[in-house]
Amino acid sequence: MPPRHVAVLHGPNLNLLGTREPAVYGTVTLAEIDRGLVERAKARGATVESFQSNLEGELVQRIQEVAGRAQAIVINPAAYTHTSVAIRDALSAVGLPAVEVHLSNLHRREPFRRRSLTAPACIGTIAGFGARSYYLALTAALDLLEDT
Amino acid sequence: MPPRHVAVLHGPNLNLLGTREPAVYGTVTLAEIDRGLVERAKARGATVESFQSNLEGELVQRIQEVAGRAQAIVINPAAYTHTSVAIRDALSAVGLPAVEVHLSNLHRREPFRRRSLTAPACIGTIAGFGARSYYLALTAALDLLEDT
Amino acid sequence: MPPRHVAVLHGPNLNLLGTREPAVYGTVTLAEIDRGLVERAKARGATVESFQSNLEGELVQRIQEVAGRAQAIVINPAAYTHTSVAIRDALSAVGLPAVEVHLSNLHRREPFRRRSLTAPACIGTIAGFGARSYYLALTAALDLLEDT
Amino acid sequence: MPPRHVAVLHGPNLNLLGTREPAVYGTVTLAEIDRGLVERAKARGATVESFQSNLEGELVQRIQEVAGRAQAIVINPAAYTHTSVAIRDALSAVGLPAVEVHLSNLHRREPFRRRSLTAPACIGTIAGFGARSYYLALTAALDLLEDT
Amino acid sequence: MPPRHVAVLHGPNLNLLGTREPAVYGTVTLAEIDRGLVERAKARGATVESFQSNLEGELVQRIQEVAGRAQAIVINPAAYTHTSVAIRDALSAVGLPAVEVHLSNLHRREPFRRRSLTAPACIGTIAGFGARSYYLALTAALDLLEDT
Amino acid sequence: MPPRHVAVLHGPNLNLLGTREPAVYGTVTLAEIDRGLVERAKARGATVESFQSNLEGELVQRIQEVAGRAQAIVINPAAYTHTSVAIRDALSAVGLPAVEVHLSNLHRREPFRRRSLTAPACIGTIAGFGARSYYLALTAALDLLEDT
Amino acid sequence: MPPRHVAVLHGPNLNLLGTREPAVYGTVTLAEIDRGLVERAKARGATVESFQSNLEGELVQRIQEVAGRAQAIVINPAAYTHTSVAIRDALSAVGLPAVEVHLSNLHRREPFRRRSLTAPACIGTIAGFGARSYYLALTAALDLLEDT
Amino acid sequence: MPPRHVAVLHGPNLNLLGTREPAVYGTVTLAEIDRGLVERAKARGATVESFQSNLEGELVQRIQEVAGRAQAIVINPAAYTHTSVAIRDALSAVGLPAVEVHLSNLHRREPFRRRSLTAPACIGTIAGFGARSYYLALTAALDLLEDT
Amino acid sequence: MPPRHVAVLHGPNLNLLGTREPAVYGTVTLAEIDRGLVERAKARGATVESFQSNLEGELVQRIQEVAGRAQAIVINPAAYTHTSVAIRDALSAVGLPAVEVHLSNLHRREPFRRRSLTAPACIGTIAGFGARSYYLALTAALDLLEDT
Amino acid sequence: MPPRHVAVLHGPNLNLLGTREPAVYGTVTLAEIDRGLVERAKARGATVESFQSNLEGELVQRIQEVAGRAQAIVINPAAYTHTSVAIRDALSAVGLPAVEVHLSNLHRREPFRRRSLTAPACIGTIAGFGARSYYLALTAALDLLEDT
Amino acid sequence: MPPRHVAVLHGPNLNLLGTREPAVYGTVTLAEIDRGLVERAKARGATVESFQSNLEGELVQRIQEVAGRAQAIVINPAAYTHTSVAIRDALSAVGLPAVEVHLSNLHRREPFRRRSLTAPACIGTIAGFGARSYYLALTAALDLLEDT
Amino acid sequence: MPPRHVAVLHGPNLNLLGTREPAVYGTVTLAEIDRGLVERAKARGATVESFQSNLEGELVQRIQEVAGRAQAIVINPAAYTHTSVAIRDALSAVGLPAVEVHLSNLHRREPFRRRSLTAPACIGTIAGFGARSYYLALTAALDLLEDT
Repeated sequence: MPPRHVAVLHGPNLNLLGTREPAVYGTVTLAEIDRGLVERAKARGATVESFQSNLEGELVQRIQEVAGRAQAIVINPAAYTHTSVAIRDALSAVGLPAVEVHLSNLHRREPFRRRSLTAPACIGTIAGFGARSYYLALTAALDLLEDT
Repeated sequence: MPPRHVAVLHGPNLNLLGTREPAVYGTVTLAEIDRGLVERAKARGATVESFQSNLEGELVQRIQEVAGRAQAIVINPAAYTHTSVAIRDALSAVGLPAVEVHLSNLHRREPFRRRSLTAPACIGTIAGFGARSYYLALTAALDLLEDT
Repeated sequence: MPPRHVAVLHGPNLNLLGTREPAVYGTVTLAEIDRGLVERAKARGATVESFQSNLEGELVQRIQEVAGRAQAIVINPAAYTHTSVAIRDALSAVGLPAVEVHLSNLHRREPFRRRSLTAPACIGTIAGFGARSYYLALTAALDLLEDT
Repeated sequence: MPPRHVAVLHGPNLNLLGTREPAVYGTVTLAEIDRGLVERAKARGATVESFQSNLEGELVQRIQEVAGRAQAIVINPAAYTHTSVAIRDALSAVGLPAVEVHLSNLHRREPFRRRSLTAPACIGTIAGFGARSYYLALTAALDLLEDT
Repeated sequence: MPPRHVAVLHGPNLNLLGTREPAVYGTVTLAEIDRGLVERAKARGATVESFQSNLEGELVQRIQEVAGRAQAIVINPAAYTHTSVAIRDALSAVGLPAVEVHLSNLHRREPFRRRSLTAPACIGTIAGFGARSYYLALTAALDLLEDT
Repeated sequence: MPPRHVAVLHGPNLNLLGTREPAVYGTVTLAEIDRGLVERAKARGATVESFQSNLEGELVQRIQEVAGRAQAIVINPAAYTHTSVAIRDALSAVGLPAVEVHLSNLHRREPFRRRSLTAPACIGTIAGFGARSYYLALTAALDLLEDT
Repeated sequence: MPPRHVAVLHGPNLNLLGTREPAVYGTVTLAEIDRGLVERAKARGATVESFQSNLEGELVQRIQEVAGRAQAIVINPAAYTHTSVAIRDALSAVGLPAVEVHLSNLHRREPFRRRSLTAPACIGTIAGFGARSYYLALTAALDLLEDT
Repeated sequence: MPPRHVAVLHGPNLNLLGTREPAVYGTVTLAEIDRGLVERAKARGATVESFQSNLEGELVQRIQEVAGRAQAIVINPAAYTHTSVAIRDALSAVGLPAVEVHLSNLHRREPFRRRSLTAPACIGTIAGFGARSYYLALTAALDLLEDT
Repeated sequence: MPPRHVAVLHGPNLNLLGTREPAVYGTVTLAEIDRGLVERAKARGATVESFQSNLEGELVQRIQEVAGRAQAIVINPAAYTHTSVAIRDALSAVGLPAVEVHLSNLHRREPFRRRSLTAPACIGTIAGFGARSYYLALTAALDLLEDT
Repeated sequence: MPPRHVAVLHGPNLNLLGTREPAVYGTVTLAEIDRGLVERAKARGATVESFQSNLEGELVQRIQEVAGRAQAIVINPAAYTHTSVAIRDALSAVGLPAVEVHLSNLHRREPFRRRSLTAPACIGTIAGFGARSYYLALTAALDLLEDT
Repeated sequence: MPPRHVAVLHGPNLNLLGTREPAVYGTVTLAEIDRGLVERAKARGATVESFQSNLEGELVQRIQEVAGRAQAIVINPAAYTHTSVAIRDALSAVGLPAVEVHLSNLHRREPFRRRSLTAPACIGTIAGFGARSYYLALTAALDLLEDT
Repeated sequence: MPPRHVAVLHGPNLNLLGTREPAVYGTVTLAEIDRGLVERAKARGATVESFQSNLEGELVQRIQEVAGRAQAIVINPAAYTHTSVAIRDALSAVGLPAVEVHLSNLHRREPFRRRSLTAPACIGTIAGFGARSYYLALTAALDLLEDT
């Protein structure tokens, strides 16, 4: 079995993580999360690549591009979770197993955050555990690949 | 009468056409559709230009740009059909006659695909005939221009 | 291949076409549209038959009857588009490929006209091009039959 | 001024009037109402014709037909008030001033009876006065014609 | 039978009638309507009193007061039609037969004007005939009293 | 006790039964169902008459007509179940005990098929058992008559 | 502790209590309820003042005025319960503990009576016990003041 | 063919049948219904077992248990019809053909009773015939088993 | 008059009262409330019995059982207020006068807590006064019994 | 150009401004705001008059009255923003340019405060800047008058 | 730090896991999942206890009981996810950190499964990974406890 | 106090201002508005920078960037007002006081334009005054900064 490669996608405003609104999002930065993912992947003999964009279309593009080199996707669509049919369609089109991640428990926030347009195009969802949501998602993604 | 020029716009994920999910979208590629449009336009003494983007804002931009050189627009907003007020506003602003195109019959898919934010800014809609939807739309656009 | 035959069905009030509310529906009469369809069908070696009724049940009946002699249906259900489960069920039952036609762009009219009960039983929809909607629909129907 | 002629249309089940459910609809028959309308029209130098049908399409047809000989319409669409886009479209198409009539006060009945699809195509509505609703509607229609 | 007395109530902004927005409401003033009601009542051996108020509570009060001297109510609740549970309760409490009047056809205006909170507390409704709506309502009210 | 007579009404498209979409509706024809009903009625000393129409108004009419000769109604309003206030009003008007029948379990189909406008005018409903739904309904109707 | 003073506010149409619709509201008059409140207050060493108005704005005004002399409010907003943001805002603004009272059980009446705009500005609600609702509310209000 | 065995499940409050609210539910007791089911089953060479519980979970449990010994289920989920996803899931999980029964016609009662969460997990529904609903359901269940 | 006996029912999680979330529910325990009820009942020559359960069905059962020995019910359905048709049906079936109690003002909490399925089966509701809600409810219940 | 005169209207509970709930509404009183408006108007050679009422109808009346002497209206309808069709109709009727003002950002408060019935009858809206909202509105109103 | 103890709760029908509908839920049994949880907990020096019930109230009760001996809860409320306010309240009342688990991706199933009443009372949610959802949830729970 | 700096952001299609649809948006160009803002800022000793983009993500990016150099934001999100959770989240994340601007009165346009996803992340809103909306917003922003 060749080494597994997982593409991690971070949606809009996640580049601010750890530097703003720490009361809501904690003090961990996105770079730290990415490092954490690299380490955990390495420990399981896999690799990860990360990408953040504030642009819906760039995320769509990236999903299309990684389809050639990754076997799974971990995605935190952030604000686009609730508004992007385009990301949903991209995930469906490339057909890779995807895990949707959220830092916070969306069920405790504004009602419009309870609707996920992207979740039906994913295998599953992990939400509410802060940075750990990503690590659990990576675990889930690698486990999925091992099942196959 | 100077030669008619029609701008064709393809929305997000349509660049994947023919290479993914053939069961849903068929095996025709976007390049083939574009060639088919060029030929059919030529047969009626008209020209077409095509543009695909995964970014909502780039589609908005393109609509503004073609206003100076095209007399009509054929647009498949794809996922943005259901979420983009910006594309609707751009179409209204430039005021060119536009024809909305969809490969599949949206009435047979998820309920959220039944709402079109962009259709009220278009002359009409053609949906459900696969690649032929585009050819019918080009015919409709050129007919419209001949009526004027 | 035997000659293709397409059944055209016109829903309620379309018999008034061209004689009333020309500002909305134009000055073309239904007889002129029917002639236009005959000519265009002939040009492609096909035949058409037309039928108009103000009664929902007669349209249901006609759909059942043409199933024996036509290979495709072009239907403008007019007002029944929004209220008739019976026409939808008839179209599903006979299983012929059907194209839904509308003279006007329903997305620009009252909200209740945006719901089509009949569209899910059709292959596709063409709306907003006046009498030309019918001609485009005939083209679409004949193209569909050629694909088969 | 030539004599005014008003077409009166009675919708489904109104032929049963006076013979069934008298507790709800009273004991006056439709024939008696029609006679009452004839007398009242005569008293004002006008004429009326009446028509009852249980078929939506026949009512559509009749609206189209009377357009050539009547100057106004008095219509009780009964059950079709709440479901018929076709009757609404017919009234709009012929463009005669129309008065919608109801025997009972629809605001006191089931919620679905509060929506009238036909009222926007009429000048006004008179509801709740039993057979007298018709007589008031005739008065309203003749008054409208005198204003013109 | 003692002479019949009908109380006419005009809701908010009706005091402006005939002096503002004549395109919408015509040029007849409220005083002229009141005179027209007095004359028509007189012709049938009845009397009327009129009252206009811009205050919901004053209309409630008036409904309570006239209960001792009038046998029927003709009321145009105007804007309060859509928002006043208090007027509805007052009409129900005094128990006089009431006729709801509207100058315009509410079904042709904004959607929120289609809901009448007051109509269920009335015998019936007459809407869309301008000043004549009042005269028809008076006729209806006096007819109702004669039936009793 | 004179022999019981039950009127069976079949709504739109049911004439196609057994000849189209057997995967959905089975291979039994309407004629076979009618024969099955005649036999079962006979076995209990009763008679049945059957009527199929694709026209809403003809069903209304038939309901009115059978009121003079039948003691109960078994009706499968098919598509009109969800759209016909007229059939509901007819059933209420004639006042015969009625049993609503459906071949399929409407709760497993499209959401709009879950609303029955006609059921409140019936004694009860039997749905989901294919042709047997009719036989159970006949049993129910005859049992109801024996209770009286 | 100085003597407690409770302001009682009665909303529109409550002045008719006991004289109209006894089947719904009983035969007790508002004056009798007010006397009952005075006695019960006296028995606990407190005082009450009562005020009834049919005008929403007068109730707002009164709530503002009593803030200087009362320690708690007992209010039956009647019809304004369902429509008055102004009374809600007044109660919030003055900040006195308030108890909402209703004679009848609103959950058994029309659906629009189930929404209370004013309840969120009150400590609690007591409904359904006729005149006793007031007495229970006075008890609740005085108990609340003793807790403080 | 071994003897058929049908499990009958009665939901909450059905143990009160015949002793309370006879005006609504009749005077037949649940024991009498159970006896009637035993007799009718016996007449067709089958057996039945009955179980009543007021606890949603006990009904879930029972559905699981009878899966080993019964070939079909007749269930009146009573109040749980409208709220129990658990019973629905249990019925789906065991996969036995089930018939939903209701004593009364739910379409004539409160709106919230029109939604059935359990019906999509059943073959069909029989409602409105009092105790006879059960007998018709047993017939339907045994017929279903004979078809297999 | 024999001594009055009132059954008090406490719904799910109320056994935790006073030991958890004191900020929301105060520090009074359920045992203390029950003692308070016993004392207050005794002072009026009546008796009470209390019962708490976390199981919806046990509350249904208890309502059925107390019907033989109590003349009134005081019930705090807690979480089941918003979801239990079964408790509502049990209350309706036994027909005892019932008073619904809530510790907190539901109008100040999540929107889903504003709907009460059980309230229409009760005489009235008392909410928002903490433990005192129970005492006021007992007063209300005993008053009701004295009226009879 | 004669001196401009602007009428300022303050809705219900605004008379309490600055004296209650300072945390929400600040410590500025309505008198101070009115003085601020007078000064700012004076600085631009204009005059203002102010009026506060807790009664919807008095605000309606005032709008009618100022139509004769003011060229523009600045109005804070407060609670009536969300419930008053009458104020909306008054503003439309007098036809003066009006600016709607709110102290707080309504989008951050309860959902029902997001609907403005009055805004469609105004030129524009200014909300969220506390007392400054009024000053900005005055500027806007005077600017509007200068444009004319 | 004393050894961590996590309570695992399985909702209705989960006892059937692995034995029924393997196409949907896989072939792993609940006992196997429980063993997997024990092993994984042990590997991290923690303990788990498991409990399954088909009764909503027993789950409520269990949540209350484990509060004394566990530091965290992993709960799969299954069908009660969508209907149980009682489980939500129990989770809120005991205040332990809880992780909601689902075997399947609820966003891909019926619409009513998208609403979770229990999620707002949990820290986070993990859904869609079959039996692995539980293992990820245990990891999440233990991680949470280590953070504290 | 150092000089204040305000960042002005213009959303999609605003680059067309003044050159298209002058009937709706006037003849002022965006450049003229920007000059007007510069002048007005200068007059108060402040500076402004302007930025227009048709891409949602670029606006998100810009909001993040200006957080380091501006003290306030004036933003006209145009079409993204109604669809962008990402812009809302960006505004919340950077935490600068922001003023939402609209050229037209959104309450007079299509219903979907009445919902603002971005307004809750702003201090306040100014809408309906054309280019002047921007100048008023700048005034509001600078006033806000002076208050601090």
